[in-house]
Formats: sequence, structure tokens, C-alpha cells
Amino acid sequence: MKFDLVRDAIAGIRPIADEKLEAAVRLRLDSLTKPPGSLGRLEDLALRVALIQQKKSPAVERQRITVFCADHGVTVEGVSPCPSEVTRQMAANFVRGGAAISVLCRHLGIESVVVDAGVLGGPIEGTVNGKIAEGTANFCREPAMTRAQAEDAIALGFSFAGGADLLGVGEMGIGNTTTAAALLAAFTGADAANCVGRGTGIDDAGLARKIEAVRRAIALHRPDSRDAIGVLAAVGGFEIGAMAGYILGAAAAQTPVVLDGFIACSAALVARSLCPAALDYVIFAHRSAERGHARMLEELGADPLFDLGMRLGEGTGAALGMQLVESAVLLYRNMATFAEAGVAGASE
Amino acid sequence: MKFDLVRDAIAGIRPIADEKLEAAVRLRLDSLTKPPGSLGRLEDLALRVALIQQKKSPAVERQRITVFCADHGVTVEGVSPCPSEVTRQMAANFVRGGAAISVLCRHLGIESVVVDAGVLGGPIEGTVNGKIAEGTANFCREPAMTRAQAEDAIALGFSFAGGADLLGVGEMGIGNTTTAAALLAAFTGADAANCVGRGTGIDDAGLARKIEAVRRAIALHRPDSRDAIGVLAAVGGFEIGAMAGYILGAAAAQTPVVLDGFIACSAALVARSLCPAALDYVIFAHRSAERGHARMLEELGADPLFDLGMRLGEGTGAALGMQLVESAVLLYRNMATFAEAGVAGASE
Repeated sequence: MKFDLVRDAIAGIRPIADEKLEAAVRLRLDSLTKPPGSLGRLEDLALRVALIQQKKSPAVERQRITVFCADHGVTVEGVSPCPSEVTRQMAANFVRGGAAISVLCRHLGIESVVVDAGVLGGPIEGTVNGKIAEGTANFCREPAMTRAQAEDAIALGFSFAGGADLLGVGEMGIGNTTTAAALLAAFTGADAANCVGRGTGIDDAGLARKIEAVRRAIALHRPDSRDAIGVLAAVGGFEIGAMAGYILGAAAAQTPVVLDGFIACSAALVARSLCPAALDYVIFAHRSAERGHARMLEELGADPLFDLGMRLGEGTGAALGMQLVESAVLLYRNMATFAEAGVAGASE
Repeated sequence: MKFDLVRDAIAGIRPIADEKLEAAVRLRLDSLTKPPGSLGRLEDLALRVALIQQKKSPAVERQRITVFCADHGVTVEGVSPCPSEVTRQMAANFVRGGAAISVLCRHLGIESVVVDAGVLGGPIEGTVNGKIAEGTANFCREPAMTRAQAEDAIALGFSFAGGADLLGVGEMGIGNTTTAAALLAAFTGADAANCVGRGTGIDDAGLARKIEAVRRAIALHRPDSRDAIGVLAAVGGFEIGAMAGYILGAAAAQTPVVLDGFIACSAALVARSLCPAALDYVIFAHRSAERGHARMLEELGADPLFDLGMRLGEGTGAALGMQLVESAVLLYRNMATFAEAGVAGASE
């Protein structure tokens, strides 16, 4: 898929407002055998999915999480306690079913697809080979990728967002909390110290190196926050570009997409920059324990569904969020109305 | 079942501390292919269930929610916008599968049992008939029930807590947010205005009547917070007594029990007063939107798993919480270790 087609498709993405449909959904919500509003945010979720799908009776049968994997040149700066080989090893672990996201998808009935968007080394059995290149360049010294590669990454992700009722997205890439922090700094102008966290669990010296790496990158590239492709090329990652494309693809396909934590939200910054209306199709699953996520959520105007202190990535937060979305839709679709159940309503 | 047997059983309930088992569980948690601690509270949940079940590999296969239903004499004070008939109508709705809790249990693979602990009128088809009496007395004028009835309610609930790996509990009873508020006031000495909320959605005048009803009840009975049976008899409800017994039964059976919101937590106050160690077996699912729940959670030292603005009861919050507990245990049990997956660990 070429980026020109993505540009055309996202030009057609519209905000989800639809007064008539919203009124119909609210009428049904209030006719169900429960006090009005008593399902709280589950009612908002049901409405949201209905508006996104443009259906009074939204579907959640076909659920899929796509996990995009890639390596990051910035790891040579000592920003992660894990070697880059772990990206590849974990991608194989996803496919074999031993990773956290594999266990959750199996348990929750979510199809999972693992896409290699740019892992070091050759193809990984069981993953979809979408390598843009074998890892990005070290953005402390040169752009992480070319503009053409940034566009290719977005187009790659875009092409995976069809054929489902409910999508989720996750990632794996040693070094990518540094990349996500750099994107946050680039899009918001926030100081690196407020964007960077401990990721996999780096020590104080490593944290200092991480902050310094992001500072150097921003000083070197001086990215223009209005130029999403330029920002992604300067300090992004292949899997993050692909996730941004996936969000845009979900919006273009009128499919709700549930985001994971810090890295996924950095992709949402890229997607929003290309198409602000795409955020209407995004459901923010959880508040990650990663420092910088709070700032990012604020920037995105997002109030996630839950906070369980998770900071694993892979789409694990998204999977749990999709379970809540499914519950919300099934309640909305399958509960009896007061009339059907012969239950008296409130008199006041 | 007689209350004497309950007394004997709860004398054997011990705190769940077990250093050796805890060390073994933590060792496995840290051997799984994820950064240590990165599953956040899901790791705490897996540990908790292991300690409760006294098993290194805890089970979550057999899951059940019991919904206890009863009516409340205090409704004659105009404390609810719904007539008492709704308790009976909703119990029938549970059995027919049209209520929120029915939809969630079906979707999440949780067995549901509906127990009539004291609904007005005759037996309700499809429910277990455990009627203590047809509704409580109006506790603004006389004790809600006799001490013998309070003990019977607890014994009733206790008997339903066996034969499962993971239990949840919910309720239905028009008027029971007033009852739960009265229990909160009785056990903590808090002013009625800080205990009472809008329940099903009462207006300002009704809210004032609710606060006044709780004040009058406390002034009339002057319940002794150290005498749980006395408090329950004075200002309690049959379903709340049964839920307290169910919590004690779960603890006695070394089974985790996931609590719903405001009403379920009022039962936890009763259970704690009879056996403080029983709280070790309780998992608090969610923060209810009902005013007074925050105060109650503080009193119980509880930090619930999520806050979705729900205030429906029936066990709906418990059902979603059980889904999280199941996910936590399956992740702990089924993820691959670093050694199994051939993944390098962190170097720092």
C-alpha cells in the first residue's frame, strides 16, 4: 500500500457526531432494566462504539490485536537494560504463545497478529514480514529513518486495520520508551525529563542517559510538530509509525481501536497530527505506570478506563480494555428493557 | 445451617500470610517473560489468590456469583424512587437472563445463583428460596429483624460459599442503599449525611428523607459497633446479612470472594466485625459512584481495582473484577519463563 492512498483515505475520516443515532442509543440505554446511567462509563463505551460503527446495534464479534515489532538504533546509547535481541526473541514468544499478550488473547477470544515492522535480522517465523528496515538509525546522531520510510511504516499499519469489529494495538521494541518519549517531546515541546521514564526498569544512571539522549535528539533535529512525517522520520520508530497508520486505518474503516499505554499513545500523537478526527475512533484502555504517560494522556485529552499500574506494553492493557468494551456492548445489546421484563420504572 | 456452626467455622479463619508460598510465587512471577513488576496489580492479584487458596498454581475454573435479594421495611419512609415490587420483578429478571448481571455472567462464563433471602410475597420461580421473612421491619420505628433472624441470614449466606475456585457476590433490594448507609453509620459513627447517597437516583427531597431516616434509626437503636449481630438486627437487611455470611463462608473455604460496591461493602463491615481475618479473602472490585462508598472503602482499608462510575449493584462490578482476577491468574500460570522462551533477561 502506498502512502498516497492513506492520504486519500484519511481525508475522508469524519468526527463521529451523529445526533439522531446518539438519541436512539440513549433512549435504548435508558429503557434497559437498570437505574439510568448506573452502568457509568460502560454506557459511554456502548454509545461510542455505536457512533463509530454507525450502527444502533454495534458488533464486537470479530476482535483482533495487532502487535507491531521493530528495533531502535538509539539503544546504542545505553537507554535500556535489555539487549536489542530481546525484540526478536519476544516476537517469537508472541507467536509461540508464551507472552503475556498471547495468554490474554487466547483467554479473551481475541485474534492476535504479530507484524515485524523492522526487527533486526531476517524474517521471524509466524510473524507477518513487513520490515521497513532492520531497525532504525540512532536518532541521537542522524534521523531515525527517511521520510519515505516513515510513510511506508504508516502505510504498513494502515493496511492491517480492516476486517474486524473491534481492534486493539500493541508493540514490542527494545528502546521504544525512549523513542516514544522523544515523540512526546517533539510534539509538545515538553522537557525530556518530563517525558522519559524507566521503561523496562532502567537504573538511575540509565535514566539520566535516556533523558540526555532525548535532549540531544531534539536539539539535533529541531522537529517541526506540525510535520508528522518529519517528526516520525527524525525521532520515531517503525512499529510506532505502523501503529499510527493502524489507528488511521481503524478510523477510515469506522472501527473502534483500543490503545495500549505509553508507546501506543505516542503513535496516537502521530495519527492526530495527520488527522485530528481519527482520535474519535480511539479508546484509551489504561493509564500506564510509565512516567510520561500522564503528560501524553493530557495532551491527547484522554481519560483511560483503568489504572492497574501496568507498564508491559505488547497490547496487554488494550486486551483488558477490549474486554470492557465487549462487556459494555453486550450489556447494551442483550439486557431486557423495563417493558420486556415487566419491571416498574422509577417514579421520580 | 445453624449459626453455631458458622461461629465454629469462622474461629478457624486465619490471615493468609505464608512467607514460603509468597516467595515461591514471587520467584515465578519474576521468571516470566516480562519486566519484573510490569503487570502491576495483576501480579498482586495472582499472589493474593495463591495465598488464599494455599496453592502455588491457583485455580479459577469454577466461578460463581451469588445474588442475594430481599426487601426493606424502611422503604415506607420514601427513601427510594422505586416501589418494593421491583425487588421481586428484578429477581425474576435475573433468572430469565435479562438483567445486567445475567448478561455479564453469561458472557464471562460465570455461573449465577439467585437467592431469595427475604423478598416480599411468595417464592420466586428459579430462585433459591431462603426467605428469612418477607422483608425487614422499618428500622426507623423498630429493629429491622430479630437477633435470631440476623444469625439465620448470616448462616444462609455462609452455606452458599462452597464448591468454587472464585466467588463473587451481588444483591438486589429496593431500599438497600439506605440500609447500607445505616450500617456504615452504625459501624463507624459517621454522620448520616456522609453515608447516604442517591441510590437508584432519588431527588433532593428524597435524599433529605434518606438522611433523616438513617439519623432516626441510629438515634433509636444506638447500635453497639462491637456487636455485629446487634447492628445487623437493628438496621440491617436479610440480603446484607447473607452477603456477610457468604464472605465468611468464602474465607472458611479458602476461596477468594470478589465484592461488588456499596451494599456488598456494608456486608464486609458486618463480616469484619465477626472475623477480622476474613477480609484477607476479599477482593474489592470497584469504586462505586454511590456517595458513602469512598468512606466505606477507607474504613475497610480497601483500594478497589477500577472505577468506571458504576452504581448498579447486582454483582456487576464483581463480575468485571472476577474477569481481571481470572486474567491475572492465567497470566501467572500460563506465561512462558525466560528460560522456556529463550529470552534474555535485563542486564541491570
